[in-house]
Amino acid sequence: MEEKKIPYVEEEYDVVVVGAGHAGCEAALACARLGLETIIFTVSVDSIAMMPCNPNIGGSSKGHLVREIDALGGEMGKNIDKTFIQSKMLNKSKGPAVHSLRAQADKMNYSMEMRKTLQNTDHLTIRQAEVSEIITETTALENGKEIQKMTGVKTFSGAVYHCKAVVLCTGTYLCARCLTGEMITYTGPNGLQAANHLTDSLKEHGIEMFRFKTGTPARIDKRSVDFSKMQEQKGDERVVPFSFTTNPEDVQIDQVSCWLTYTNEKTHEIIRNNLDRSPIYAGIIEGTGPRYCPSIEDKVVKFADKDRHQIFIEPEGINTNEMYVGGMSSSLPEDVQHEMYRTLPGLEHVKIVRNAYAIEYDCINPNQLYATLEFKNIKGLFSGGQFNGSSGYEEAACQGLVAGINAAMSILGKEPLILDRSEAYIGVLIDDLVTKENHEPYRMMTSRAEYRLLLRQDNADLRLSKKGYEIGLISQERYDWICQKEVLIQNEIERVAGVKIGANKEVQALLESYGSIPLNTGTTLTELIRRPELDYEKLAPIDKERPELPYDVVEQVNINIKYDGYIVRQIKQVEHYKKLENKKIAEDFDYDEVPSLRIEARQKLKLYRPLSIGQASRISGVSPADISVLLVYMEQMKYHKGNIK
Amino acid sequence: MEEKKIPYVEEEYDVVVVGAGHAGCEAALACARLGLETIIFTVSVDSIAMMPCNPNIGGSSKGHLVREIDALGGEMGKNIDKTFIQSKMLNKSKGPAVHSLRAQADKMNYSMEMRKTLQNTDHLTIRQAEVSEIITETTALENGKEIQKMTGVKTFSGAVYHCKAVVLCTGTYLCARCLTGEMITYTGPNGLQAANHLTDSLKEHGIEMFRFKTGTPARIDKRSVDFSKMQEQKGDERVVPFSFTTNPEDVQIDQVSCWLTYTNEKTHEIIRNNLDRSPIYAGIIEGTGPRYCPSIEDKVVKFADKDRHQIFIEPEGINTNEMYVGGMSSSLPEDVQHEMYRTLPGLEHVKIVRNAYAIEYDCINPNQLYATLEFKNIKGLFSGGQFNGSSGYEEAACQGLVAGINAAMSILGKEPLILDRSEAYIGVLIDDLVTKENHEPYRMMTSRAEYRLLLRQDNADLRLSKKGYEIGLISQERYDWICQKEVLIQNEIERVAGVKIGANKEVQALLESYGSIPLNTGTTLTELIRRPELDYEKLAPIDKERPELPYDVVEQVNINIKYDGYIVRQIKQVEHYKKLENKKIAEDFDYDEVPSLRIEARQKLKLYRPLSIGQASRISGVSPADISVLLVYMEQMKYHKGNIK
Repeated sequence: MEEKKIPYVEEEYDVVVVGAGHAGCEAALACARLGLETIIFTVSVDSIAMMPCNPNIGGSSKGHLVREIDALGGEMGKNIDKTFIQSKMLNKSKGPAVHSLRAQADKMNYSMEMRKTLQNTDHLTIRQAEVSEIITETTALENGKEIQKMTGVKTFSGAVYHCKAVVLCTGTYLCARCLTGEMITYTGPNGLQAANHLTDSLKEHGIEMFRFKTGTPARIDKRSVDFSKMQEQKGDERVVPFSFTTNPEDVQIDQVSCWLTYTNEKTHEIIRNNLDRSPIYAGIIEGTGPRYCPSIEDKVVKFADKDRHQIFIEPEGINTNEMYVGGMSSSLPEDVQHEMYRTLPGLEHVKIVRNAYAIEYDCINPNQLYATLEFKNIKGLFSGGQFNGSSGYEEAACQGLVAGINAAMSILGKEPLILDRSEAYIGVLIDDLVTKENHEPYRMMTSRAEYRLLLRQDNADLRLSKKGYEIGLISQERYDWICQKEVLIQNEIERVAGVKIGANKEVQALLESYGSIPLNTGTTLTELIRRPELDYEKLAPIDKERPELPYDVVEQVNINIKYDGYIVRQIKQVEHYKKLENKKIAEDFDYDEVPSLRIEARQKLKLYRPLSIGQASRISGVSPADISVLLVYMEQMKYHKGNIK
Repeated sequence: MEEKKIPYVEEEYDVVVVGAGHAGCEAALACARLGLETIIFTVSVDSIAMMPCNPNIGGSSKGHLVREIDALGGEMGKNIDKTFIQSKMLNKSKGPAVHSLRAQADKMNYSMEMRKTLQNTDHLTIRQAEVSEIITETTALENGKEIQKMTGVKTFSGAVYHCKAVVLCTGTYLCARCLTGEMITYTGPNGLQAANHLTDSLKEHGIEMFRFKTGTPARIDKRSVDFSKMQEQKGDERVVPFSFTTNPEDVQIDQVSCWLTYTNEKTHEIIRNNLDRSPIYAGIIEGTGPRYCPSIEDKVVKFADKDRHQIFIEPEGINTNEMYVGGMSSSLPEDVQHEMYRTLPGLEHVKIVRNAYAIEYDCINPNQLYATLEFKNIKGLFSGGQFNGSSGYEEAACQGLVAGINAAMSILGKEPLILDRSEAYIGVLIDDLVTKENHEPYRMMTSRAEYRLLLRQDNADLRLSKKGYEIGLISQERYDWICQKEVLIQNEIERVAGVKIGANKEVQALLESYGSIPLNTGTTLTELIRRPELDYEKLAPIDKERPELPYDVVEQVNINIKYDGYIVRQIKQVEHYKKLENKKIAEDFDYDEVPSLRIEARQKLKLYRPLSIGQASRISGVSPADISVLLVYMEQMKYHKGNIK
């Protein structure tokens, strides 16, 4: 008897994006905006761009990522500009390298606005369904080797979506389980269904999976908080938008406040007394958590000498009374949470609306990816976000954007976008992910960037808009403005260098008013700007010919003059770095042919398959000596090849 | 060795409400507004008052329910007035008894506004947690019998919430599973986690459970619809609000349109060809579906002679491109859906965003409830909504309101709210639920109401505000206005009766202009208003002394005059009905003592334990002869008791 074949839906797209969180949204928008027919899958259309953890975008180094996303034509910056409720430039007392913009979001509006943008983007289809399998075919490469190639995905309902490229952005949903003390539920965040099938399919395709965990604090009822016992944290008087395209006047809104309180010895005692009931310390949690975003129990254990920790009480939106207890994520049991949150000044009578919990999920070892975020062993399969072992909305979004762009570039037969460590925080992040050993969720930090004086949040547009333009995500008009801005900055720096300042009465009075040493003799305006207590704007009264320039041009002029020495030095370092980065290694380079390469180095290099000497040098287990051996061999090869010709 | 006892959170409230859908929200708001400390549990705070099916509130007979909810001090009417995007008074060409208001909702805003209201209501606590057990204690009643009494609930995390009353409003979440053809997922609507534990606890407490199912159609992408092939359905030019408290000027908004299209022979053929793959017809679905809200496959099978069915394409909100395919719910497989939706004019190239699906869930046999919606076998346990075996947001909300009010009344030691069939659609609905056999989800319909000329949507405030006021949910100010309105109506009806109209030129011309027969002799204004082609407002020009009256007063005057004869007759019927209703039967009445009562009747009466002869008479299996036997016995009892004294 013939078996009846069950029919199924079959559709064809250029790109399939799996997951509609911060990574998936950027990936899908990038592909669709580049004209590729794109479908994005989500377990719930109501949860697009959901913020299941903290209610803010940006912050130290993360603000840089958002600015870079924006300069490349991504959406995150625009979306937070539309939906923020408080904004602050952090670290303003420090140097410009670590200035970071952070905005509190109205979570619900953030999600709704992103959904609206997705729904109204041409070439983009949204589908509520669970992708359960990836489909590949085996192709012979030019060098005779075989490689898998993506041809589509299958959903749990059996539908097949044929495509040329897939971007996986599954976030924390793969085989997710949430833990609060002894209580375990098998769902994603906020009781949304987990995706329990895709992991198996990925493993069958030879992908190595990790199990990571992260956590979130409790949400509390605003009405149960005594704010008089906390310090108010207001937004900036003058708000700076995230997106370079947002009119600064549009973001001068009525802001809401956050509040600062502290843990104390009583809090820590409760935590210590209940550590045996923490799923992490009791060994129930299998996944590895983020070192730089620790739970309160981790903080209490690891920093046992600290007698208090900062806790920020942040609104979750304008239309809700729920507030986020920033700095106090936990997987301790509910009764312990109940007790410990109430030890904080202002939270004595707090009502918990949602418990804190830890969430475990499947992700990949990102070493399996090229810097394009394409899988080395499966052509056409890209990935981004927490699936790649990172942590944070901004880290997710920038990877989603790069993965989406590169999926598109591969289909369009164009050069991939690879940002190096000297160009962008995004470059640092991806390079760290794909070349370093990652055994915990990766979080961006300014300290991870070697060239951070160059990679400022204020100059992200100058650094990256050209790439965004070449890719096709930045409009001609926007790009023209960047070019014009560069000229304006350069001209003004040169003009300022030529402005002679005499030691006259007006000048001395101005200097004195800022506590600056009077002039003995004439100097240039440039020299005065470099004085720490002065800057370009303060010296306006004695700069009679100063042209009127936009704020962002002025900012660049000032920073470039003040930090000129450091910048020049860093540019030189970058040149050296670039040399190594430009020494490319072929994808199919045969390390077994290199004589006298140490076994460990050989193994690591074969595993990571770096695309440049620079990348190779950053792989842990590959020493400078190994690099020399490699460089010598490559020089010889070139020589031999030359001879053969 | 002593076992370590795991500590848990313990809190105390007056009332616990389980579930924050349309029933739960009303129940919780009622209790909290009456000053009782109330906690409401939901599996997701983000899904409070979610509309998982159709995007509208009201409609035939359901509009009546919303008006009645409003008159009793409930929230649904106010909430839809804040968030509607189109509104229409249905059946305006028919008599006022069947006029019904229906509004399209912005689903997201509807949910958000209700959440906001809950979050800002004093005495109301919102908690995201799954209630997994009810806790009771056994109490001796006055008559020596024992009964269970609610003392609290336990959540899945082990927390115990002590309380005096519990209102269960679990909707479709108990052991929910969703079915689309062969695909089954074990979640509630929209991928939200099901509540898989409470059913067992309820069964352990002797509660009889049913398994019902309902369904919803696909959601489609607006951009893939060709509206030129459909008929536009606009809202009313002058919108009437749902709530009697809403200023009519506030609801005159820019409305969006709905669209009408039809199924055809091709659609029906596809459905017939795939019936074997429908989970219902293949026997996979265990639950019983709503007869009056059938799936498209049910319609095609049951009305095989109909060559087309109306399908309404309705927006799901202002900020989304998703649209609802009203009239086409289904549990057919995805590929069949894909095919069948595309046969409809205008949907030739439709993109489905979310599949149609059926959902199965546990609910109760509502015969276990008193008309107060309290469980007969557990004191202090109330329930409302789909958990009681009903269908529809409005049916849920009104039960939630009554259950909440009665939970509060029981705690406050006040008289319960029992609406009878002559007072309200809510009375009809609850009476049907608690006294009739319900083997499918119960839907309200005008035809279920015997006295529907009295139970109009336009007079719900006059019918019920006094009760809302006595309960404490209607303010003094609002109640004063109702009293004043009654006087204004009565005065105007009397004045009109005294207005003599002569057969003069002006009168004859006016009559002629409306195609009305000219007068032979003088008459009263009342007589003219009663002519079908005329009404109170049309006759304004010849009613020289007419006072200026609010619109809603005018409406009542007109209806009362025009339908006076019918109304008087129905009031007489009600009086007869009331007599039987007022013959109360004691809760512990011993039917075994009644001689010559038929066995079936005895069994049914013992099972349902009706609270009046009227209720007893509506129990199926109890005949008029049985009622006579009962009445005779009750008279004798009274006589005997009298003698003994």
